[in-house]
Amino acid sequence: MPNYKPPQRDTQFLLHEVLNVESHYEALLGHTDVNKDLINAILEEGAKFAENELAPLFRSGDEEGCHFNEGVVTTPKGYKEAYAKFVEGGWCALSSPEEYGGQGLPNSIGIVISEFTGSANWAWSMYPGLSHGANNTIETHGSEEQKKTYLPHLVSGKWTGTMCLTEPHCGSDLGTLRTKAEPNADGSYNITGTKIFISAGEHDFAENIVHIVLARLPDAPKGTKGISLFIVPKFLPNSDGGIGERNSVVCGSIEHKMGIKASATCVMNFEEAKGFLIGPPNKGLNCMFTFMNIARVGTALQGICTAEASFQGAYEYAIERTSMRSLSGPKAPDKEADPIIVHPDVRRMLLTQKAFAEGGRALCYYLGMQADIVTTSKSEEERQAADDLMAFLTPIAKAFLTEVGCEAANHGVQVYGGHGYISEWGMEQLVRDCRIATLYEGTTGIQALDLLGRKVLMTQGKMLMNFTKIVHKFCKANQDNEKLKSLVETLNGLNKEWGEVTQKIGMLAMQNRDEVGAAAVDYLMYSGYICLAYFWAVMAQKAHEKLAEGTDTSGFYTAKVQTAQFYFDRILPRTVAHKNAMLSGANNLLDIDTEHFTFL
Amino acid sequence: MPNYKPPQRDTQFLLHEVLNVESHYEALLGHTDVNKDLINAILEEGAKFAENELAPLFRSGDEEGCHFNEGVVTTPKGYKEAYAKFVEGGWCALSSPEEYGGQGLPNSIGIVISEFTGSANWAWSMYPGLSHGANNTIETHGSEEQKKTYLPHLVSGKWTGTMCLTEPHCGSDLGTLRTKAEPNADGSYNITGTKIFISAGEHDFAENIVHIVLARLPDAPKGTKGISLFIVPKFLPNSDGGIGERNSVVCGSIEHKMGIKASATCVMNFEEAKGFLIGPPNKGLNCMFTFMNIARVGTALQGICTAEASFQGAYEYAIERTSMRSLSGPKAPDKEADPIIVHPDVRRMLLTQKAFAEGGRALCYYLGMQADIVTTSKSEEERQAADDLMAFLTPIAKAFLTEVGCEAANHGVQVYGGHGYISEWGMEQLVRDCRIATLYEGTTGIQALDLLGRKVLMTQGKMLMNFTKIVHKFCKANQDNEKLKSLVETLNGLNKEWGEVTQKIGMLAMQNRDEVGAAAVDYLMYSGYICLAYFWAVMAQKAHEKLAEGTDTSGFYTAKVQTAQFYFDRILPRTVAHKNAMLSGANNLLDIDTEHFTFL
Repeated sequence: MPNYKPPQRDTQFLLHEVLNVESHYEALLGHTDVNKDLINAILEEGAKFAENELAPLFRSGDEEGCHFNEGVVTTPKGYKEAYAKFVEGGWCALSSPEEYGGQGLPNSIGIVISEFTGSANWAWSMYPGLSHGANNTIETHGSEEQKKTYLPHLVSGKWTGTMCLTEPHCGSDLGTLRTKAEPNADGSYNITGTKIFISAGEHDFAENIVHIVLARLPDAPKGTKGISLFIVPKFLPNSDGGIGERNSVVCGSIEHKMGIKASATCVMNFEEAKGFLIGPPNKGLNCMFTFMNIARVGTALQGICTAEASFQGAYEYAIERTSMRSLSGPKAPDKEADPIIVHPDVRRMLLTQKAFAEGGRALCYYLGMQADIVTTSKSEEERQAADDLMAFLTPIAKAFLTEVGCEAANHGVQVYGGHGYISEWGMEQLVRDCRIATLYEGTTGIQALDLLGRKVLMTQGKMLMNFTKIVHKFCKANQDNEKLKSLVETLNGLNKEWGEVTQKIGMLAMQNRDEVGAAAVDYLMYSGYICLAYFWAVMAQKAHEKLAEGTDTSGFYTAKVQTAQFYFDRILPRTVAHKNAMLSGANNLLDIDTEHFTFL
Repeated sequence: MPNYKPPQRDTQFLLHEVLNVESHYEALLGHTDVNKDLINAILEEGAKFAENELAPLFRSGDEEGCHFNEGVVTTPKGYKEAYAKFVEGGWCALSSPEEYGGQGLPNSIGIVISEFTGSANWAWSMYPGLSHGANNTIETHGSEEQKKTYLPHLVSGKWTGTMCLTEPHCGSDLGTLRTKAEPNADGSYNITGTKIFISAGEHDFAENIVHIVLARLPDAPKGTKGISLFIVPKFLPNSDGGIGERNSVVCGSIEHKMGIKASATCVMNFEEAKGFLIGPPNKGLNCMFTFMNIARVGTALQGICTAEASFQGAYEYAIERTSMRSLSGPKAPDKEADPIIVHPDVRRMLLTQKAFAEGGRALCYYLGMQADIVTTSKSEEERQAADDLMAFLTPIAKAFLTEVGCEAANHGVQVYGGHGYISEWGMEQLVRDCRIATLYEGTTGIQALDLLGRKVLMTQGKMLMNFTKIVHKFCKANQDNEKLKSLVETLNGLNKEWGEVTQKIGMLAMQNRDEVGAAAVDYLMYSGYICLAYFWAVMAQKAHEKLAEGTDTSGFYTAKVQTAQFYFDRILPRTVAHKNAMLSGANNLLDIDTEHFTFL
């Protein structure tokens, strides 16, 4: 089983050396006291929790899974105890506002802790993760009374939350959802309908579960403009802040699924359950979209969590397991065979994992900083710029990082050979656990339409240019940097090409809207590889700077430079395949008759 | 759950229209009576068996898995009954020699039946599949007495067989294996050691199991040149052909693994078990390699079986499930939303699956025909040419088709969205079941070294040229074919490039042997995409010919042409990424210090 250790050295490199978070926090409202020492202390404690409390439950939780019996869900052994410790340690409250008992720390710190816990045990991490969604919804759209009633409990972790969107017949297409909300005389609503795929919909972690439910009012317009948001607690809150009457929302069953088996995926039946409108009527989807980006960055993390955990497991195995001799002569002549890390192809797989984990980490932390700016900048202009940047980068981060996270997990299995297929090592579990990541919170296809259709083409490329300008500026600033020359040239070329390719797709799309759908996923992956190239170039630049200072004794910076080179040489060429595929036009997808796919 | 139906129309297109098997059989020894009617009758019966007996056990076998209790393995409900019917139907004996009770049909027919059963239920198919290995070993290397003792039972399916190679410390690196064989006075041997990952090592299908075991004689040289082959039956055969004394080979446990859960993967403990030398001493590996190609083509099939089964499941869902509207306007205005097959990205995924399944099928059937020639050609020259062609194409088929089979299975899950992650649909099971295919029978990395190192570079490119000549001949013959022009031009260009790229790698390898390992997997995938392009071009050529005859009313040939176009436009560009990666040299893999991969 992979013995996960949070990569604190890399995290510190990113936060302090590449992203300079200390000065970033200084410029924000209310975060001036967040200094390097505080950050590192938090990271160290969070790392300990992840490593000591959560990682040991990774395999056992998968083996045991969740139990369901007449509406009651029991989580695997040790899971609720770990949650109790998490609550006790104040970890739920990390980035929540102080007025509701939170610690008011920036989002970007929360993301690092989420990465540590998620790498150690993604299935467990989903329970507190889902609470964030409910938490944010109430904080942003709730009435004062709703905030006072729910937030202190959600912030402390005493209660947990869910987001109830999907129904049996609709996932991405929320416009067709059917759950009804009928008004009661007291201002509350009776909610009736079935929601599926509700993570943490029922469990034994907490005394109460606060469901945020999408439903339709009786007079609601059809489609997405007729959806409202409701708070539906499992137990109705008492006036004293405790829990009262049991509400008629019941878990009907839990799903048997490929992975994340310790995370309860529930069918939730609402039968005239009492609900409370949150936000304006019929504006439910708008309210939801407020923090769609944050939620999606949270899912993007699963890609890098998986890549990192699988990488650590594979590396450990690769230095211990012996098999065959190096083609260039024995490297461990005293042993019967060489450790498999001598084989170039094993290194190729390990470096691919490493490049995705570390490059993706840079992208996610960067997005965390943008989220800080969106919520606590002093300047409206800066806030808007960060919001736009997030709008553009988030679908890329979510879809691209989860896709390559799945790839990385598969490399991890492959490094183990046949042993990778055996459950006890945990490597195959990472593949199964991660497979959900390209599906939930909007599939890769949905993210790709969001990116190309909404973010890029609908803004006439403006959102793309926001980012390519940043890349361009970096390239220009480093054009005379001899050490960085080849990377910068390649990056600069691709950055220009990105704009040209976008224009071509835009032209095609003017003739046929289906060209957007036909190009979208290749466009997203293409964009993802370029984004990561930018972050690798930035990291390489910083690493070279540190190497020039001559203080690197560990080899850390040298390894960064080498991994950047690997990424540019062996991963980045994939952009060509995606470019050619998307520019081939929609006809090769549309021509074939629906009835002619099979002849059985 | 995917409702698998064997693709008989496509099989017939390949066998009769593209590959002309009838005239192929006519030219072979002993197969003159194998005509189109007979072939189609066999296919139809085989298809029924796969669809009616095996497909219904696909999900239940995964759910239940195998049971282990004190050395006894019980297979899931219905599995042994299905096997009994398989034996009764004479299916085990299909391609075995008539003198041992077989039906003496060509390998290429056996491959089609294996495809049907494997697509319906790969885990079940492994039991008869493994018998083939033991069967072939004894047929080729056994003494007359051994053949008489074991073959009739193995051919009929009354007994089954295994191949016992892997040990806990060694898989690919068989040179280090430790199982001992000590001679007894009666000419038999005492076999002692532990073998792992033994598929069908123990089960309840048959009264006896014949293990073919790799072990070392006391005086054996070290390494691969000191390995001998032994027959170790679970029950020692009686002189009357029945079973006698229980041998001391015992199943110690079965593995808990990612998929193929209905296939028992056994730890086999040999404790002075009685074994019988087969073939010359210390030549065990050579004997094994005799039909390594056949075994590997058998595994290559898993890629196309998975692609086909997943494709069928995804297609069914894509025409039924509705979500969103087509970007170019509603396609099913009477419904609340359009069926998802209107979305170009869903079509992209389906066509990718289809292109891999049908292109891979052509490659596998072609290899089946080469195997026919190797075993039953009248001309030694022809036999040698077919053997060389198989030697070159088999590692490509095994590694490339299983890699893209895994990709196809993942597309199948993705088409289902979140539902793909739920076990009951069976789509995620295909991902889990198929994941083993790139690991066993030699990992992708091992196949790639075999291809680039042994087959291509060690023959100074001769084996590559055997195949590129065939491709070249096809391109030349079709250079004036207006319908095929663009495909042929692309194929011809890549075919030339293939040689050039190989030369470059060869030059690099002369300076550093590690360049072979560094390039190998990208080289293999690159080669695989070109191979499949050739088969798609050949199929398109035949389809155009049929379309010109004007007899296509079903749309079958039009769909072939369209799928070929899709493959060339959207899949084949991946060759560029692989080419650039492999030509980037080994340094970007070797430079990083073994200790510098992580800093935890």
